[in-house]
Amino acid sequence: MKETFGEQIDEMRKNAPDDQKHIQDYLASNCFGDYYTRNGLDMKTRELLTYSMLISMGGTDSQVRGHIQGNLNVGNNRETLIGITTQLLPYIGYPRTLNALACLNEVLPEK
Amino acid sequence: MKETFGEQIDEMRKNAPDDQKHIQDYLASNCFGDYYTRNGLDMKTRELLTYSMLISMGGTDSQVRGHIQGNLNVGNNRETLIGITTQLLPYIGYPRTLNALACLNEVLPEK
Amino acid sequence: MKETFGEQIDEMRKNAPDDQKHIQDYLASNCFGDYYTRNGLDMKTRELLTYSMLISMGGTDSQVRGHIQGNLNVGNNRETLIGITTQLLPYIGYPRTLNALACLNEVLPEK
Amino acid sequence: MKETFGEQIDEMRKNAPDDQKHIQDYLASNCFGDYYTRNGLDMKTRELLTYSMLISMGGTDSQVRGHIQGNLNVGNNRETLIGITTQLLPYIGYPRTLNALACLNEVLPEK
Amino acid sequence: MKETFGEQIDEMRKNAPDDQKHIQDYLASNCFGDYYTRNGLDMKTRELLTYSMLISMGGTDSQVRGHIQGNLNVGNNRETLIGITTQLLPYIGYPRTLNALACLNEVLPEK
Amino acid sequence: MKETFGEQIDEMRKNAPDDQKHIQDYLASNCFGDYYTRNGLDMKTRELLTYSMLISMGGTDSQVRGHIQGNLNVGNNRETLIGITTQLLPYIGYPRTLNALACLNEVLPEK
Repeated sequence: MKETFGEQIDEMRKNAPDDQKHIQDYLASNCFGDYYTRNGLDMKTRELLTYSMLISMGGTDSQVRGHIQGNLNVGNNRETLIGITTQLLPYIGYPRTLNALACLNEVLPEK
Repeated sequence: MKETFGEQIDEMRKNAPDDQKHIQDYLASNCFGDYYTRNGLDMKTRELLTYSMLISMGGTDSQVRGHIQGNLNVGNNRETLIGITTQLLPYIGYPRTLNALACLNEVLPEK
Repeated sequence: MKETFGEQIDEMRKNAPDDQKHIQDYLASNCFGDYYTRNGLDMKTRELLTYSMLISMGGTDSQVRGHIQGNLNVGNNRETLIGITTQLLPYIGYPRTLNALACLNEVLPEK
Repeated sequence: MKETFGEQIDEMRKNAPDDQKHIQDYLASNCFGDYYTRNGLDMKTRELLTYSMLISMGGTDSQVRGHIQGNLNVGNNRETLIGITTQLLPYIGYPRTLNALACLNEVLPEK
Repeated sequence: MKETFGEQIDEMRKNAPDDQKHIQDYLASNCFGDYYTRNGLDMKTRELLTYSMLISMGGTDSQVRGHIQGNLNVGNNRETLIGITTQLLPYIGYPRTLNALACLNEVLPEK
Repeated sequence: MKETFGEQIDEMRKNAPDDQKHIQDYLASNCFGDYYTRNGLDMKTRELLTYSMLISMGGTDSQVRGHIQGNLNVGNNRETLIGITTQLLPYIGYPRTLNALACLNEVLPEK
């Protein structure tokens, strides 16, 4: 699972223009490196927290889609993500909620 | 623990003006009632998700303080909340992060 | 007119995946049901208020388009929506304003 | 009623430092002048729209308080403002809603 | 260079529907007219400030793309825009940063 | 001037609780260290860009006040900050603008 995550990050870095690779390095070390691993939370919880934060920011559909995939990579599933989205709905309101569900249905269609 | 949470909600409702109690009822049922309990996540994880969402919205210091207390009520601690805040920093940026830490230091000072 | 609105909501529910229909039920009852009808405002005013709120949130183009249609359904017109957008411009700034106008021109082109 | 509004604006301009009076002039003409009056909506509706927009932006408590007073000045009342806030709750979420109610209770306490 | 900027604004006004040209006039005078020129900053600095503000608002991709072009029109280049984006990253977080870079790569691909 | 800036950062770190000093280190290196100095912009321009970004985010009054002081430390003045605020007004709208001016008048009153 960890390899898959690493591969995803490596892919992002490879695809970035040369003059933006320093930002990918920043992401790799700060979002997925030391900061990401030292807080005593397991990886599944961390990805759920990241999803919760992203869907409440607004204007972040691309990152929401990326971390829906990230959640699947670490073993979370569609049911859990819908459960979280339902729980956060009264706080973030339905426009942000519907945007999140649209991303979810795009990345991971209902079977 | 659950009683403490219920007491906190009852207190909010009691303090609300009569013409706003319907909104407290909405909160009680939607944020802490059915929506809150049916998604298969334990209460400690749910409060961490709520904290993550709130610190990334901006302009929500009052609610952040309330849910720092909510996190303590269900058994999460200062160390975990700082760990989450550290992890989310690269996503939400340092202004939102510093606001979260200021709330944390106010509600729950370092020993 | 009310039928048209109801039909729009029914359509949204029908199109939603099975595991998200509870969220459509929430919308139907909270956004368009009891909450929506008991506040003593007529439906045309309510839709104008919803439009005003949505264009100021940011990252809500899909919902803005939906409620431009909702405004037309209850009898508001392009001229009124442009009037409101013009009035709110100094508060919400021109990026949010131009996004609103782009949605308006897409849903309801100038004759 | 209009005089009261004009007086409020004059007061803001008088209190502004000399090197910021050009911004008060901008507000007077754009928010309350030509833009404000030409869109065919009566003043009571306009203030309701302004309130709706402000409570959904976040980080605008000071302006929310100002326009709660503005709403009262043009003849809207606490009941209507609570009605609107209730209606918008499912869209803007409860943190923004509770902030709005706190402003309302501060400017215009329940009798 | 200034002509190019004026031409861009004229083009926007020409393309706007008749019933929205008053908003283009507002933009032309307030964003690019008197307000824009009297603050003692040279045009290159002003466009950098506009870019900085836009990438931190969220939900403004269309305007970010427009002002990347605006920056190029007044003589700023890709390297400077990446430098600014890198500097602002720790404040605005990586979702807003990645959105900005996506706009940059679209308007002005790496050579 | 640079010493003053360094002193300000050292002060922030000293005042932070022990379990949050790693976040101050992050700020020191990312916001004021390598990232801050390598982009080819002089320090006065950088602080203006930071101010522009902060006033447009919302819910960041504490950081706005800090960087008004930061701007003064590197040689920018009240007139320039008002000029920038005036220029950004049509983009960010007047609620964010008035919040910025309130911070400015608090940190640096008109003589």
